[in-house]
Amino acid sequence: MAVYTDITESELGAFLAGYDVGELQSYRGIAEGVENSNFLVHTTTGQFILTLYEKRVNRDELPFFLGLMQHLATHGISCPLPVKRRDGGTLGELAGRPAAMVTFLEGIWLRRPQPVHCAEVGRGLAEMHLAADSFTMTRRNGLTLEDWRPLWEKARDHADGIEPMLRTETEALLDQLEAQWPRDLPQGVIHADLFPDNVFFLGDRLSGFIDFYFACNDAFAYDLAVCLNAWCFERDHAFNVTKGKAFLNAYNAVRPLTDAEVDALPILSAGAALRFMLTRLYDWVMTPEGSLVVKKDPLEYLAKMRFHRQVRAASEYGLD
Amino acid sequence: MAVYTDITESELGAFLAGYDVGELQSYRGIAEGVENSNFLVHTTTGQFILTLYEKRVNRDELPFFLGLMQHLATHGISCPLPVKRRDGGTLGELAGRPAAMVTFLEGIWLRRPQPVHCAEVGRGLAEMHLAADSFTMTRRNGLTLEDWRPLWEKARDHADGIEPMLRTETEALLDQLEAQWPRDLPQGVIHADLFPDNVFFLGDRLSGFIDFYFACNDAFAYDLAVCLNAWCFERDHAFNVTKGKAFLNAYNAVRPLTDAEVDALPILSAGAALRFMLTRLYDWVMTPEGSLVVKKDPLEYLAKMRFHRQVRAASEYGLD
Repeated sequence: MAVYTDITESELGAFLAGYDVGELQSYRGIAEGVENSNFLVHTTTGQFILTLYEKRVNRDELPFFLGLMQHLATHGISCPLPVKRRDGGTLGELAGRPAAMVTFLEGIWLRRPQPVHCAEVGRGLAEMHLAADSFTMTRRNGLTLEDWRPLWEKARDHADGIEPMLRTETEALLDQLEAQWPRDLPQGVIHADLFPDNVFFLGDRLSGFIDFYFACNDAFAYDLAVCLNAWCFERDHAFNVTKGKAFLNAYNAVRPLTDAEVDALPILSAGAALRFMLTRLYDWVMTPEGSLVVKKDPLEYLAKMRFHRQVRAASEYGLD
Repeated sequence: MAVYTDITESELGAFLAGYDVGELQSYRGIAEGVENSNFLVHTTTGQFILTLYEKRVNRDELPFFLGLMQHLATHGISCPLPVKRRDGGTLGELAGRPAAMVTFLEGIWLRRPQPVHCAEVGRGLAEMHLAADSFTMTRRNGLTLEDWRPLWEKARDHADGIEPMLRTETEALLDQLEAQWPRDLPQGVIHADLFPDNVFFLGDRLSGFIDFYFACNDAFAYDLAVCLNAWCFERDHAFNVTKGKAFLNAYNAVRPLTDAEVDALPILSAGAALRFMLTRLYDWVMTPEGSLVVKKDPLEYLAKMRFHRQVRAASEYGLD
C-alpha cells in the first residue's frame, strides 16, 4: 500500500513521449500493490496504469509477465493490456526503473466476496488456464515446495515468539509435503496469487484479472489450492463449503479436473497455506519497523494449514 | 501518503445510493494526503474523489471547507466541487467517518515548478482571495502565532537532538514574532497550505487548487508568505529571486498589495517558515516508528527561517 518512487513531470513527459497516447492530463499514485509503484495516468486518449518495477522484481522476468497479459488479453481473458511503445516494445525505463503502462480496467475488488463471486472466479480461472495454453514463454514458480524450506529456515527462530505450536506444526507439514507432493499433475501457466484484490467485478460479474507478477508454470490444481485459501474461508478462519462448492464446480464445468487433480487438492491446499504463511512470517520478522508495508498476520494461515491437514477428500471442499 | 480506512463494496454501495451519480465502476485508494483517506471513484456518470475524514479533522469544520470549495467553484476558481447528495447536503457518512465526494480535477502537481508556474500561482492566489471575499462562513486559523508557542513547548526538548542551534534560534524568532507580528493587515479567506502538491497544472497553465483543509480567515499577505516558502526556494534551501519576482508581481497585478502588506512580508515569511518547521518538528518527534506517515525534515525550514530573518525589504523577494 505505497508508492515507493515518485516521478517528476519531466521524467514522465519524456517517458510518455515514447508512446502514442496523447497529452498527459493527470497522474496520481495508487495505494495498491506492495511490490511496485503504481500510478493512474489520464491522457487525452484514455486511462492507464503505469507501474514502476521496484528492486524485488527480477527485470529479466518482466517480458514473461507483460507477454502473458498481452496473450491473455488477445485470447478473450479480461486483463490489463500492455500498451505498445512507438518502438514496438512494452517495457521502458522511468526514474531509473523498468516501467510499463497497461490499460485501465474498470471494476472493483471485493472485500467480502460471496458464493456467486467464487463461482465467477472458478469459471474465469478455468478459462484463463485454457487461454494460456498457447502461450509459449515459460517461468519457473519461484515459490514452490523447494523454496519453502530455505524460507522457513530464515524465519523459524522467530516462529515460537509468534505462536508456540507454529514451529512444530510447520516442520511436520514440511516433512509431509516433501514426502507426498504430487509431481505428475497437468501443468500450464497459473496465476499463483489470485486473491480477491486481484480480481475485479462489475456488479456480480467478473470484469477482469490483474497482478500477474507471480504467474508461472506449475500444476493447474495448485492455482485452485491458492484460491480455496484466498476465497473460501471466513474472517474467523473457518472454511465455507458453500463457497468451495461454488468455486470448484464452476471451474470443473469449464476445465474438468482429472482424478489425480481431485485427489491432490487437500495436500496442494495445505502447501498453498504453508506458502502464504511462510512469506507472511518472513515479512513479519524481516520488515523493519517504520516500513510503509502493512504486515499481514501469518497465523491466519496456520489455521488454514490445520484445516487442510485434516481434509481427507476433495468432496469436503464441496466438489460434486 | 496512505489510505487509513478501507471500505467494503456494500458500504460504498449504500453511500453512493445517496447520490445521483450512476453505477459504480471502480474505486482505488490514492496515495496522497496525509490526514484523510482518499479514493478515486469511477461511476457511469463520471469521476470523483471520495474523502473519508479521519480523526485529526474536526467534523464541525467540514461545512466550512465544503462550503468554501462550492463557493469558489461557482465563482470562477477551478477547484473540486462537492457533489450534492439527493438530500441536498454534501456531507455523508461512510465506514463510521464523515465523508464527501468532490469532482475529479485533471492536472498534475509539479515536483519541480519553474518561474512561469510561480507566476500562475501568484495570479491564481490573488483571484482566489478576491473570489472568496463574498463567502460568508468564517474559520479561525488553527495554526497562527498564538498556537506556535504551545506547539514548540511540546517539541522543544527534542530540538537540540536534531540540530544544536535549533532551540536558540526558534526561541529568538518566537520572541521577535510575538513582539512585532502585524495585526491590521487586510484579511479574508486564505488557503494557508498552498504547496506545489495542492496546485494542478495542464502544461504550464494552472488548472486548479485542491486541499482546502487548512483554509481559514487570516491576513491575505500570510498566504503569500506561505507561498514564498513553498514555491520560491531551491532544493539546497536557497531562495530563488526569479521565482519570488514572478510570484509576487503576478499576485500584485491582480490584487495590488497595500504598503503595510509589502512591509510585513519578511516577518510574515519568517512566521510561515516557523509554522512549518514546528509542525514538522512535532510530527518528527511524535510520530511513532512504524507509522505510515512519511516524515518531512524540519531543518529545511530552519534554513528558510534564517533567510527571512535577514531580509530587510520585500524588494529582496523580487517585488517590483
